[in-house]
Amino acid sequence: MQNNLNEKTTEKKITSRSEDYSQWYLDVIEAADLADSSPVRGCMIIKPYGYAIWEKIHDILDKKFKQQGVQNAYFPLFIPQSFLTKEAKHVEGFAKEVAIVTHHRLESDGHGGLKPAGELAEPLIIRPTSETIIYDTFSRWIHSYRDLPLLINQWANVVRWEMRTRPFLRTTEFLWQEGHTAHKNKEEAEEMTLKMIKEYQDFSETYMALPVIPGYKTESEKFAGADYTTCIEAMMQDGKSLQAGTSHLLGQNFAKAFEVSFLNEKGEKEYVWQTSWGVSTRLIGALIMAHSDDKGLVLPPNLAPIPVVIIPIGQGKPDYEQVLSFAKNLSVKISKETNLTINLDDRDLRPGEKFFYWEKRGVPIRIEIGPKDLQNNSVVFARRDTGEKATVLIQDVILKTRETLNDIQKSLYLKAESFRNDNTHFIDNLADFKKMVDGKGGFINSHWCGSSECEAKIKETTGATIRCVPFNQKEEVGKCILCGGKSNGRVMFAKSY
Amino acid sequence: MQNNLNEKTTEKKITSRSEDYSQWYLDVIEAADLADSSPVRGCMIIKPYGYAIWEKIHDILDKKFKQQGVQNAYFPLFIPQSFLTKEAKHVEGFAKEVAIVTHHRLESDGHGGLKPAGELAEPLIIRPTSETIIYDTFSRWIHSYRDLPLLINQWANVVRWEMRTRPFLRTTEFLWQEGHTAHKNKEEAEEMTLKMIKEYQDFSETYMALPVIPGYKTESEKFAGADYTTCIEAMMQDGKSLQAGTSHLLGQNFAKAFEVSFLNEKGEKEYVWQTSWGVSTRLIGALIMAHSDDKGLVLPPNLAPIPVVIIPIGQGKPDYEQVLSFAKNLSVKISKETNLTINLDDRDLRPGEKFFYWEKRGVPIRIEIGPKDLQNNSVVFARRDTGEKATVLIQDVILKTRETLNDIQKSLYLKAESFRNDNTHFIDNLADFKKMVDGKGGFINSHWCGSSECEAKIKETTGATIRCVPFNQKEEVGKCILCGGKSNGRVMFAKSY
Repeated sequence: MQNNLNEKTTEKKITSRSEDYSQWYLDVIEAADLADSSPVRGCMIIKPYGYAIWEKIHDILDKKFKQQGVQNAYFPLFIPQSFLTKEAKHVEGFAKEVAIVTHHRLESDGHGGLKPAGELAEPLIIRPTSETIIYDTFSRWIHSYRDLPLLINQWANVVRWEMRTRPFLRTTEFLWQEGHTAHKNKEEAEEMTLKMIKEYQDFSETYMALPVIPGYKTESEKFAGADYTTCIEAMMQDGKSLQAGTSHLLGQNFAKAFEVSFLNEKGEKEYVWQTSWGVSTRLIGALIMAHSDDKGLVLPPNLAPIPVVIIPIGQGKPDYEQVLSFAKNLSVKISKETNLTINLDDRDLRPGEKFFYWEKRGVPIRIEIGPKDLQNNSVVFARRDTGEKATVLIQDVILKTRETLNDIQKSLYLKAESFRNDNTHFIDNLADFKKMVDGKGGFINSHWCGSSECEAKIKETTGATIRCVPFNQKEEVGKCILCGGKSNGRVMFAKSY
Repeated sequence: MQNNLNEKTTEKKITSRSEDYSQWYLDVIEAADLADSSPVRGCMIIKPYGYAIWEKIHDILDKKFKQQGVQNAYFPLFIPQSFLTKEAKHVEGFAKEVAIVTHHRLESDGHGGLKPAGELAEPLIIRPTSETIIYDTFSRWIHSYRDLPLLINQWANVVRWEMRTRPFLRTTEFLWQEGHTAHKNKEEAEEMTLKMIKEYQDFSETYMALPVIPGYKTESEKFAGADYTTCIEAMMQDGKSLQAGTSHLLGQNFAKAFEVSFLNEKGEKEYVWQTSWGVSTRLIGALIMAHSDDKGLVLPPNLAPIPVVIIPIGQGKPDYEQVLSFAKNLSVKISKETNLTINLDDRDLRPGEKFFYWEKRGVPIRIEIGPKDLQNNSVVFARRDTGEKATVLIQDVILKTRETLNDIQKSLYLKAESFRNDNTHFIDNLADFKKMVDGKGGFINSHWCGSSECEAKIKETTGATIRCVPFNQKEEVGKCILCGGKSNGRVMFAKSY
């Protein structure tokens, strides 16, 4: 990674979380050099450091998918308008937010300017998601039970014309992966749906250091066109919930709309059973909001583009050459033995400026080396998450690097988990429910009768929605927090991103 | 890789090259399962096997770029119309082939259908290339000479509304990488331009086994908005030239249009000097046309998603279990020791069907193992490129795998090079020139006076264009093949893709 991007931002102060959480989020993105606004409404520019995090996410997930037998492919950006309308619920869900291509060239407007020309016979929709175009293709790829299961994934950009956007969390264009599978029966499709949400949970917990609650979406929150939607929900530091991934059982809805059928072992025609599942650059928003602090970004080591930065101290002093040469050798040694990306910051800046620079960018370990350290045969480790400093003997550096990174990874997870536990509530009356939503927020487990009317009314009156019906929902007879109707278990409410 | 995709295609015969080269190309793509047509005009679907080749290309180039200090980032898909028009030559070059978004939702058309609604105040162009949107951003990222050089790359999809399309070679949407750099002076920018075309040449020769001629494009063939364009040109088996990569010196043209300036060491404002460079999924088209034969795809080992397939023989016979178990162990062993992806094909098909299946897909080495081979403590290696078979002792399998793959890689290169040499001509009169273009084609080195008029006229009358002025052009006084005007060296003509 280059060190020279946006040195300007070193001067701007980050708003504290307690002062203005939303502004803090934007300030961290700017200070850590993750993204930039763009001249296109609702679209952001992912800067190199932010994109490097996305590359890590990509590489880890891609490997997981391939281990599951999923193959990558690439389908067109454009969807004919007529395709989008084939599955009734699907088009209902997306019609209001699609960008539409209507012309294919610019020509003179007769006043020295240019205007769109070459009107298309049928408008093309920029994919907001690719079920329709992919399943039209599946209808040609799948003939017999021997072609099943078909397990496909696509890494792509998609566009949803959002009214209110926020970097990473909700942007008009975003990057994501979308998995699409076809199976010979419902059981296999359900198994796949659950397997993938578990993969997302594992990724979130193991790499993002972010504990999540997996569960089912309600009818009103499910994907447009699915039989049901499973999701993972994570708690952010302001007590709101962020949906970090979804996996849908599509049943035979799209199969019937796009004639995706196969001949079974008896030679009879059947429709396939399908799933789709995805995560997006939104995960970077989750990362930021889960772990960062008022000093800037805090990254879990497993997703940090630069897990360790080495800072030689004493520039301009007589021993500096020796320090620098030692730092260089150490950098090569650590990188070689741990296979990690190590950054040696030998820029002509004061150490304090460098500390500040890398702190804002969330680099997990900073190693400081000065002339005194060299004399003592040691270096100083500073942890980004706790700020703790420790003197480490040179012969222990490799071991200590590994240990400290593991420990930071684990600590961040435990801290997020304990924050979530502290902000998880079980509430049985609407007044307390409202008070909690308006106050500290968090996850509120309450009874609900199962009706969409009650769900909508609770949302309207409190601002909280049902984030999920957790997989591990306990059987417990209770009364709906709104209407008092019968309930057999609590569902999880929260305000959400 | 799954083995079950498109077994149907096993039955279709591939048209021979001599019969119909264009149809042969399409047949190979279908037989090798690389791509599929789509319902969207000019857009293709890249199937898993084709995409796996693109992933190889991506990974190798991405590593090369990063070694050069280039960082990846991501910029919006959409370009405001007003941006595209800021650099006069640039818009002139692209206005006729841009897809334009004019609306952002679908609403009822009053007759049970839907129509585009929510007209945008300013139309958005789908990026045909991203100079304009990226350099607008650079104008905000670059302030001082300390911010230079800025070396950015983007992996993305782009759209050019082409009238005549062919899979991989020319599609409305395609995948590519586009590098964009800014430098403090012309020398550095020129150095970068040449460094990147050299990287492409190295990639093409080392990985694609494809010799190329690097050189300069003429004024009329250069990138719209560049000072000059460098390119690499490769010969296909029909004697046509394929441009496999370009690197442009943009000079200060875009810098002036987008106000990309910096304060130099003296505190004076200067415009940056820029380059851009790219390769696309077109490279897969080049791969196919350079090496494949009438039996299907032939892949150079360095880009083969599956370099080795193992086929156990004798299904249904008494010793088969033993053969299969041996084949499985061998597969694990080779994969472990060479780090290559090995496919064990244990499907319930006849050996001949399996041979045919993998032959069409261009897998470099097929290892056959039958009961007799086991008894003899050996296996059979079959090379895709030459069809040669060799008996290999089991203890030599790892060594022989490495050696054979290296040899195939080298042989393909030499074969392509010798084909190119055989079809490279030096011609000094227009009649012979025409005859050669209409006949065997190939690269024709002839004198040209340097005028665009002659260049255009030669194209019009012969169909051949100047592919490049080779970097290694020899000084040689001669007469323009059209007008007889003075020339100081030959340029390279050919018909092209």
